[in-house]
Amino acid sequence: MIPYLKEKYGNPSSIHRYGRLARKAIDKARKQIANLINADPSEILFTSGGTESNNTALYGITKKKPGSRIITSSIEHDAILEPCKRLGKEGFEIIYLPVNNFGLVDPLFLKNNLTDNTSLVSIMFGNNEVGTIEPIFNLAKICKKNNIVFHTDAVQAAGKIPIDVKELGVDMLSISSHKINGPKGIGALYIRKGISIDPIFLGGGQENGLRSGTENVANIVGFGKACELSGINMLENSSRMKKLCIYLTNKIMQEIPKVTLNGHPEIRLPNNVHLTFLGVNGEDLLIKLDEYGIAASTGSACSVQIQKASHVLQAMGFSHEQITGSLRLTIGISNNLEEMDKTVEILKNVVKELRSVSPFKEKYSF
Amino acid sequence: MIPYLKEKYGNPSSIHRYGRLARKAIDKARKQIANLINADPSEILFTSGGTESNNTALYGITKKKPGSRIITSSIEHDAILEPCKRLGKEGFEIIYLPVNNFGLVDPLFLKNNLTDNTSLVSIMFGNNEVGTIEPIFNLAKICKKNNIVFHTDAVQAAGKIPIDVKELGVDMLSISSHKINGPKGIGALYIRKGISIDPIFLGGGQENGLRSGTENVANIVGFGKACELSGINMLENSSRMKKLCIYLTNKIMQEIPKVTLNGHPEIRLPNNVHLTFLGVNGEDLLIKLDEYGIAASTGSACSVQIQKASHVLQAMGFSHEQITGSLRLTIGISNNLEEMDKTVEILKNVVKELRSVSPFKEKYSF
Repeated sequence: MIPYLKEKYGNPSSIHRYGRLARKAIDKARKQIANLINADPSEILFTSGGTESNNTALYGITKKKPGSRIITSSIEHDAILEPCKRLGKEGFEIIYLPVNNFGLVDPLFLKNNLTDNTSLVSIMFGNNEVGTIEPIFNLAKICKKNNIVFHTDAVQAAGKIPIDVKELGVDMLSISSHKINGPKGIGALYIRKGISIDPIFLGGGQENGLRSGTENVANIVGFGKACELSGINMLENSSRMKKLCIYLTNKIMQEIPKVTLNGHPEIRLPNNVHLTFLGVNGEDLLIKLDEYGIAASTGSACSVQIQKASHVLQAMGFSHEQITGSLRLTIGISNNLEEMDKTVEILKNVVKELRSVSPFKEKYSF
Repeated sequence: MIPYLKEKYGNPSSIHRYGRLARKAIDKARKQIANLINADPSEILFTSGGTESNNTALYGITKKKPGSRIITSSIEHDAILEPCKRLGKEGFEIIYLPVNNFGLVDPLFLKNNLTDNTSLVSIMFGNNEVGTIEPIFNLAKICKKNNIVFHTDAVQAAGKIPIDVKELGVDMLSISSHKINGPKGIGALYIRKGISIDPIFLGGGQENGLRSGTENVANIVGFGKACELSGINMLENSSRMKKLCIYLTNKIMQEIPKVTLNGHPEIRLPNNVHLTFLGVNGEDLLIKLDEYGIAASTGSACSVQIQKASHVLQAMGFSHEQITGSLRLTIGISNNLEEMDKTVEILKNVVKELRSVSPFKEKYSF
């Protein structure tokens, strides 16, 4: 990225040498991103991140069809749910498909909710809180059969599990750079050839008129490289992360009583461990872990400033107590086994300490 | 920026240490940006750049007032004009104020076009093509008196001429980072306390719910630093650039016949030289200059992929021939006098060469 922040500072829309250098870099990155999901480079639209990708998919498809039905799930990221809420107020009919207690959407429910008036179905690929991977192939197939546009928010899944948009048959797919160790503030929306969308921003006509604004060249370059690397190293990284996740989960369950793993036990992202520690406040746990240098989260990091109970866990049928006691531990590509052991040791002590003053102390006889 | 692309990679919405470090960096940048225009940090909204800032101002204010009148000028950047066109199709009444042959908007025209139904006035600060600076103080005053929201696209002006939002009395103001030597893909919208806007993106609720999406931390940090530096060095840089502009303009006019300076001769951005070389195609000139390592532009770099005659020059009453022969030379903070001399020398030869094969050769007796 550095050269594009320094000497190669051209505006890719400029005709001169500096402009052409920047344009070339963008073209290369577009290929790298397309390669990761087996798309054509012309099907990749750069955005400022996952939120813009999701908003663009929703508004882009539905704008021309006021009053139509939009089908999504009850466990989507807020970058889908909040625009849906607004579209609901604007006269669209929003259907939120339920999930089972693993967080899985049932394709049959989708099928039963399709109408002639349905303009868009948007179901996430891998859930950002509990890690469950949805049956995207089956969901997309149902949409294709009914000629309805299918979008998936793959911000958590892309770069971690193999995604082939052609094989899957999805029409649109959101990716975010910083979820695969690329820079923040850049993302992409895959838009299958033949699908036309209304742009959100208008102006200079960049990205074939679909996303005006001078391109974020350096971040695009970094995003491209991150896609390339995560593609090359996916098998190795994911299997290592998955092993660490299983190791961590098992060890926590062995060492600490009354802990459950949330989300589907197997059909889940390779880097996600989401647990409920009964009788403990997840927020307290997070703050204690931070004191020991462990960066964990409750719910979604993206909405932490607004304190609210996780809508994902609610949709999965969790009790208030279970939701409160939940913690997400995400494994990164640089984590190792020693860190897992250390985490378990710290968690053990912290949970013990917090449970000793828990209001649920007697209920569970800690 | 580098630490925020590397070890300080936290999500500013996360509660843990990495998150807090990123949050702190954003807070600092927000202050740096606010300082540049004498705003309160709470009045600064981060966006992905000037285009998003402008689109946010337009949609953000008018969304609640369908059918209202929006007043702008005929020489705005496409990031204002294109959204206005769309709003026009959606039932808004768009008034495009004319300009004189210097590119100046007459405040009287604004006054005469205000109605009770006017929701927003948006007039750019400094024009991106010809460099003319609009009478923002007077325009804002008229709006204030009539209780109408006033926005200005200051993408070209911020960091180059002193801007004090309080003194000027503007309600909203767009800034772009890469126009002041900061990174691309980041910008801000100043929104005066008391002005409420509808957000474009919805999601995690970042930026007080006005701009969802994980913050582009590194670029925000770079943008903040760019604002700080351009504030500290503004007087020195601008007076040096202005001197170079005047030197370059005068020397070109002395050495090359049939050249005119466009835009207002004095009330103009300190880094902009916009000239018409009669009988020459600006595009050809640009390509020739590029061969000598000089990066120039015709019209706006932002819309170069769509070849069209400059709407700015058209609005200023230029003939097709004058428009075709126009070239913009922008001075950067690192340019020097020798480069001006070199540019004039090259221009002289290139213009001579192009004019020798010009279809206007006889008309002007080159």
